Amino acid sequence: MPTPELDVLGIGNALVDVLTHEDDDFIDKMKLNRGAMTLIDDEFAESLYDAMGSGIEISGGSAANTMVGIASMGGRAGYIGKVRNDQLGTVFRHDLRATGVDFASAPSDNGPRTGRCLIVVTPDAQRTMNTYLGASSLLGAEDVDETLVASAAVVYLEGYLFDLPPAQAAYWKASRVAHDANRQVALTLSDAFCVERHFDAWRELVRDQVDVLFANESEICALYRCDFDDALQKVRQEVKVAALTRSEHGSVLVAGDEVHVVAAQGVDRVVDTTGAGDLYAAGFLYGFTHGYDLATCGRLGSLGAAEIISHIGARPEVRLSDLAAPLLRK
Amino acid sequence: MPTPELDVLGIGNALVDVLTHEDDDFIDKMKLNRGAMTLIDDEFAESLYDAMGSGIEISGGSAANTMVGIASMGGRAGYIGKVRNDQLGTVFRHDLRATGVDFASAPSDNGPRTGRCLIVVTPDAQRTMNTYLGASSLLGAEDVDETLVASAAVVYLEGYLFDLPPAQAAYWKASRVAHDANRQVALTLSDAFCVERHFDAWRELVRDQVDVLFANESEICALYRCDFDDALQKVRQEVKVAALTRSEHGSVLVAGDEVHVVAAQGVDRVVDTTGAGDLYAAGFLYGFTHGYDLATCGRLGSLGAAEIISHIGARPEVRLSDLAAPLLRK
Repeated sequence: MPTPELDVLGIGNALVDVLTHEDDDFIDKMKLNRGAMTLIDDEFAESLYDAMGSGIEISGGSAANTMVGIASMGGRAGYIGKVRNDQLGTVFRHDLRATGVDFASAPSDNGPRTGRCLIVVTPDAQRTMNTYLGASSLLGAEDVDETLVASAAVVYLEGYLFDLPPAQAAYWKASRVAHDANRQVALTLSDAFCVERHFDAWRELVRDQVDVLFANESEICALYRCDFDDALQKVRQEVKVAALTRSEHGSVLVAGDEVHVVAAQGVDRVVDTTGAGDLYAAGFLYGFTHGYDLATCGRLGSLGAAEIISHIGARPEVRLSDLAAPLLRK
Repeated sequence: MPTPELDVLGIGNALVDVLTHEDDDFIDKMKLNRGAMTLIDDEFAESLYDAMGSGIEISGGSAANTMVGIASMGGRAGYIGKVRNDQLGTVFRHDLRATGVDFASAPSDNGPRTGRCLIVVTPDAQRTMNTYLGASSLLGAEDVDETLVASAAVVYLEGYLFDLPPAQAAYWKASRVAHDANRQVALTLSDAFCVERHFDAWRELVRDQVDVLFANESEICALYRCDFDDALQKVRQEVKVAALTRSEHGSVLVAGDEVHVVAAQGVDRVVDTTGAGDLYAAGFLYGFTHGYDLATCGRLGSLGAAEIISHIGARPEVRLSDLAAPLLRK
């Protein structure tokens, strides 16, 4: 096979984040699922937006955030996701390309608007995400460009997108194309509710196709329906590498017999946890596709997560390659 | 006259800010007017946006920022400005209303898109603003609701909007309606280039209609074509109150024989100076419409400016009334 042109190609929901600060009462009053990602329809999106305070708009989307992080680390990243040709779609495309991510998916000329994620940040810096998928829900197997997938060392699949059957077909196609080209498949479970909704489909995809798995504690427990330590024993038999994140307790990495426990990187003040997992994956995958050992990959993940939780929004505010330089002197 | 229902009604350019960080080289390469506000056409807006890095979108517009600041102080504020019924127009309307500002102007159903201000923040925290006026340029005398103007203790006019003849007519109408109702007229000069472009029109408006004038050093010097101290002597003969801001040197307030020199409020780190003048005006006008003495008005202005320059964007991130509480104990 030729040398890959991209380090990682991400596939996910193309969303613009709308972030607002609210008290805990707001979560109760609007009956939101605290700390989770909930899919909402256009009507509830309108009424939630009406009730929300003043917001700021920052391009988001889990896998898109990860690709931006990889580019910020100095890696070569590409992205597949659907926006519409409206103002927020233009914002999303601009921001991805401006950070150096290769984004070739054509915007749709009709159908639902560009998707939005209404994010309520509570005083504890926890984010509660409410996603109107809009145009991003249209992604299907036909959007998976085989040449592009085969050109990336790793194809990275965002779990959030797995809620819809056309996207599930897209993931199977992308996985098969990647493996036929001797590439690797990475997946993030994204959300425990999402795992529970599509339990059998997830189990099958992980077992059959996934080489590198990202999950937090509740997600990995949901996937194996057991406690964390039991899940750890199970996942190491099913995937080549698992990176299990545990918020402020850092992460546990397993690859067959190899195990590493990596500390979280401290921050002065946690402002907004939006994107913590996305940027962990970015740091990890940059290391993974550049030949670093597993423990260094984990430390790069911690570094990415620490940068992103220290400010509002899920896109890095400084060049991650500058922050990472001390870790990358081989 | 009845007691005013609003403390301040602002009229200005309704814009969504798109903020990005760039090095000084970018300013040179794109031939931008460093530190100033420059009007740009749709075509240059496109090419500048293409060249800009990843951005964040926050509702802006000078007078709109001031009205949000007054509402955040606990005052009653209204706003007149034009957006289109597009996605950014919806964002602008939402953010203004969510902060408690009364915004009744109907969006236009056709014509140019909602205006945008492409703001390049350099490492010294200086902002260079490039404004595509879009729908906001359509504002004219017909948009000045006489009942609304008469219902506010002060009508506040944003200098930036004075670049276009229909807006100049709107300002004359608003001023006359306000004075007929025994209300006061406040004006901010906004930008020295803007003053130079419409010198005679500005001189006439200030002399004939303005009660409270806001200007920074370069703006007041441009208005009287002399140095700062000479301008100070001239302005005190033409307006009832002038608040002359001097960045980190604080402000000078003159009202006839009364003069105050007020210090700037220090901040740990200046992040982005966008909106400093707007929030100075907000603090000042809140004090002014609530019967505080001139020196306290100036200190409230310094407080508003200090909050806004400590973070990205020109909308307050905390409730200004909380910050101001120690100053407001009469």
